[in-house]
Amino acid sequence: MARTRVHNFFVSLDGYSAGETITLDKPIGGAERLFQHFDGRVIEGVHAVDDPITLDRALTSTWGQGIGAEIMGRGKFGPQTGPWTDEEWRGWWGDEPPFRTPVVVLTHHARESISFDNGTSFHFVDATPADALERARDLAGGKDVRIGGGASTVRQFLQADLIDFMHLVTVPIVLGRGVSIWDGLEEVQDRFAIESTTTKSGLVHHFWNRER
Amino acid sequence: MARTRVHNFFVSLDGYSAGETITLDKPIGGAERLFQHFDGRVIEGVHAVDDPITLDRALTSTWGQGIGAEIMGRGKFGPQTGPWTDEEWRGWWGDEPPFRTPVVVLTHHARESISFDNGTSFHFVDATPADALERARDLAGGKDVRIGGGASTVRQFLQADLIDFMHLVTVPIVLGRGVSIWDGLEEVQDRFAIESTTTKSGLVHHFWNRER
Repeated sequence: MARTRVHNFFVSLDGYSAGETITLDKPIGGAERLFQHFDGRVIEGVHAVDDPITLDRALTSTWGQGIGAEIMGRGKFGPQTGPWTDEEWRGWWGDEPPFRTPVVVLTHHARESISFDNGTSFHFVDATPADALERARDLAGGKDVRIGGGASTVRQFLQADLIDFMHLVTVPIVLGRGVSIWDGLEEVQDRFAIESTTTKSGLVHHFWNRER
Repeated sequence: MARTRVHNFFVSLDGYSAGETITLDKPIGGAERLFQHFDGRVIEGVHAVDDPITLDRALTSTWGQGIGAEIMGRGKFGPQTGPWTDEEWRGWWGDEPPFRTPVVVLTHHARESISFDNGTSFHFVDATPADALERARDLAGGKDVRIGGGASTVRQFLQADLIDFMHLVTVPIVLGRGVSIWDGLEEVQDRFAIESTTTKSGLVHHFWNRER
């Protein structure tokens, strides 16, 4: 049975995983400090970076393994809000988006799908989490579906109990403000078996596997 | 620059990573207990196994990332010793060896190469570690080379200072006998920056990156 997975989800000690307002200059809304303890989100495999091969890199490299589609919130796709006025916007990533699979973008505003030569395509969908997941599963060809964020998208899927696996990374910083991942998720941990470990960078990696 | 990497190298508390005599029934020479704390060597990616996705599985799944060729000792290829009398033997793995790259098998006894449909091929080479590595690099197409074991092969490459990265896994058991990885390697750790972490299974994962 294909899983629904969250990967490389970085959260501050006070529970924030993004800033409040995403702009062209601040694609994580000012919460870029979350990634200062780690030199990048190595999602292509440990060989894709120069030495050294760290534990952080090894753990984050599971991002794409067996993934057939992603679901993302609109804020991850771009800084625009409301009806699309600029359909020239094709995401933050230029001609080589790293996804290499179909991607469902959650938005209330319809738009034509976009395809790239490297296997990435974006499909704009106005749907509940459950319906979006069904659409993504159709696109995933039997493989797993990744919930790609941002914070409020991950929170909605956790609230709907649609997450089978989550790789959460707690970062030893206090952001003070932003989008909290945990609002409305009291006791969410009870549905999961949780394993944690530390690395030299100060990050703590948590693997949440849903109890069956 | 392509690396030379060791992955998923399981060692007991007393430094043994294989038994002394490999037979058809005991491909690790009686040291199979090394793997009892872990339900398999997940080398294809975390999606290749059923739930749960554990930290152990995530870390071991880096085995194949960016690898273009492997070097193995003869004992990993089969239980035979001396001149080849049975060229029907094509390794332990049937028609689908998991390597999917060229593999250099170190042996003093010449034999024709063997190829499989899934991209695996075995090339029998009588060479020093340095010369075998040169051969493997030719076959690897610019990608990294993995030193696949067994214990004495890894030890020889460490002694020759040819290893850039090693994922060592210490297992909380005492085997009492076998092939020691550490013989003749006093102070080998001084050449590496080492990072370690623990997981729920009791395994400790050590990432050794050669100092540049």
